[in-house]
Amino acid sequence: MLGPGDDAAMVGAPDGRVVVSTDLLIEGRHFRRDWSSAYDVGRKAAAQNLADVAAMGARPTSIVVGLGMPADLPVAWLDGLTDGFRDECAGAGASVAGGDVTRCDLVVLGVTALGDLGGRPPVTRAGAAPGQVVAVAGRLGHAAAGWALLDAGAPVDSRALQEAVAAHRRPCPPYAEGVRAAELGASAMLDVSDGLLQDLGHVAKASGVRIELDPQAFTVGEPVAAAAKELGVDPLELVLTGGEDHALAAVFPSGVRLPASWQVVGRVVEGEGVLVYGRELGHGGWDHFR
Amino acid sequence: MLGPGDDAAMVGAPDGRVVVSTDLLIEGRHFRRDWSSAYDVGRKAAAQNLADVAAMGARPTSIVVGLGMPADLPVAWLDGLTDGFRDECAGAGASVAGGDVTRCDLVVLGVTALGDLGGRPPVTRAGAAPGQVVAVAGRLGHAAAGWALLDAGAPVDSRALQEAVAAHRRPCPPYAEGVRAAELGASAMLDVSDGLLQDLGHVAKASGVRIELDPQAFTVGEPVAAAAKELGVDPLELVLTGGEDHALAAVFPSGVRLPASWQVVGRVVEGEGVLVYGRELGHGGWDHFR
Repeated sequence: MLGPGDDAAMVGAPDGRVVVSTDLLIEGRHFRRDWSSAYDVGRKAAAQNLADVAAMGARPTSIVVGLGMPADLPVAWLDGLTDGFRDECAGAGASVAGGDVTRCDLVVLGVTALGDLGGRPPVTRAGAAPGQVVAVAGRLGHAAAGWALLDAGAPVDSRALQEAVAAHRRPCPPYAEGVRAAELGASAMLDVSDGLLQDLGHVAKASGVRIELDPQAFTVGEPVAAAAKELGVDPLELVLTGGEDHALAAVFPSGVRLPASWQVVGRVVEGEGVLVYGRELGHGGWDHFR
Repeated sequence: MLGPGDDAAMVGAPDGRVVVSTDLLIEGRHFRRDWSSAYDVGRKAAAQNLADVAAMGARPTSIVVGLGMPADLPVAWLDGLTDGFRDECAGAGASVAGGDVTRCDLVVLGVTALGDLGGRPPVTRAGAAPGQVVAVAGRLGHAAAGWALLDAGAPVDSRALQEAVAAHRRPCPPYAEGVRAAELGASAMLDVSDGLLQDLGHVAKASGVRIELDPQAFTVGEPVAAAAKELGVDPLELVLTGGEDHALAAVFPSGVRLPASWQVVGRVVEGEGVLVYGRELGHGGWDHFR
């Protein structure tokens, strides 16, 4: 409604409430300028926050960006970043409302996303109840597979491996599924940023329930399977512990008819923690798990 | 309405629109841990964004914070920072709605403030028209005086000098005057963050007008006068070019009856730029100006 150039921007909030999420992304920690283009960094930084908004069951409306940048940052890099922000927002139905630029030795991005609930209550992490089902929408393990390939310096010589690396550089959150899940009656939801097991642990804890996942229920994407083979790891490990794809995970009443974009992968029972193969992932990590 | 701990926070936006402002603050550039306590850094970081919201004529409602911090940052520092955010928000009628913490070699703060317009149009920088008057609310030159004293390593041995240093550490924006100015019919407004001359230059440019300031109309605060004497500088230079007090500067229709909190300091005429003593501050800086 009123964009960059004044003390503040103005954004529509037709619901009378606004959902707001903020993240800092630090060069070297959250992205590397030699691994990702400026455009991809912009896409990813926007995606991360827009997915948080979608995970509340809200429609993303806008982002504002604080950018810290070295004096010698090429203008082309800044242009690429801006394009990435713009395009990722457009894909989520949102826009860039404003920003702030300051000098910093590192590239630092402070991204805040806003969203509108359309009159619905927010879908928090605390609403899961025994008897309900757990479902996911979006990709799992793709970004982690791509990161592991880059980190290992592995050859990326097939289309499947290239797709994994592309998924690391540019997540593809299923934004519209957030509102859809809310409309379908989701009782709890979050976006998968740290890995499904860890993130569902937050739902289990906040809701006071146990979540049991069915390892047979997961689809292993071709990029994940190819990367796991290349790296000699278990593809299911990538699917269950890999973060940064910003899939959505939600809990629905049992008997709900879900569209094909949502895949049921588990159920909610009494207890605590997240179980796969009847066990909870402990400090031994995946190798000691199966 | 829904605070920290979920994917996103939820904040009331009764107006159906929300004003949003974001800033990054980088250690060493915007604050020094040896010059300011954690509490003061929190107060100042919140104040900077809350003032931007007030400068739109909006009531600040909340902030969200992204914090980058080194692994060895003392817990007491983090507690002080959090207390500072909380208290500054409380003073503005707002609250801390959420945040995000990540590791970073430097302390980096990404602060986003939200506000509500109460049904009024936003007061931008572009509404000034010839014949109107320019007025300020809040302190001018205090923070710059304090910074200059610290930077010069000058003795801070009187109450007035101590007040200047305190003003650098902790600005005191006149939050409530933002809504008040809007209700009084302000046609343009901003917060003074970079110095009155420079900031009013933004109003002049955005509005397509010239602003003439009356140097006799300014009250020089006792801390500013004392610091100027100690440092051998012109106190009016501190008042007109010193930033970071986050005073509000606004343009009102001529004939408006302003409360005592607003001081008329100039007028809007046809033309461009900001004039004092009939001259525009050029590249020679203040020394070549008077």
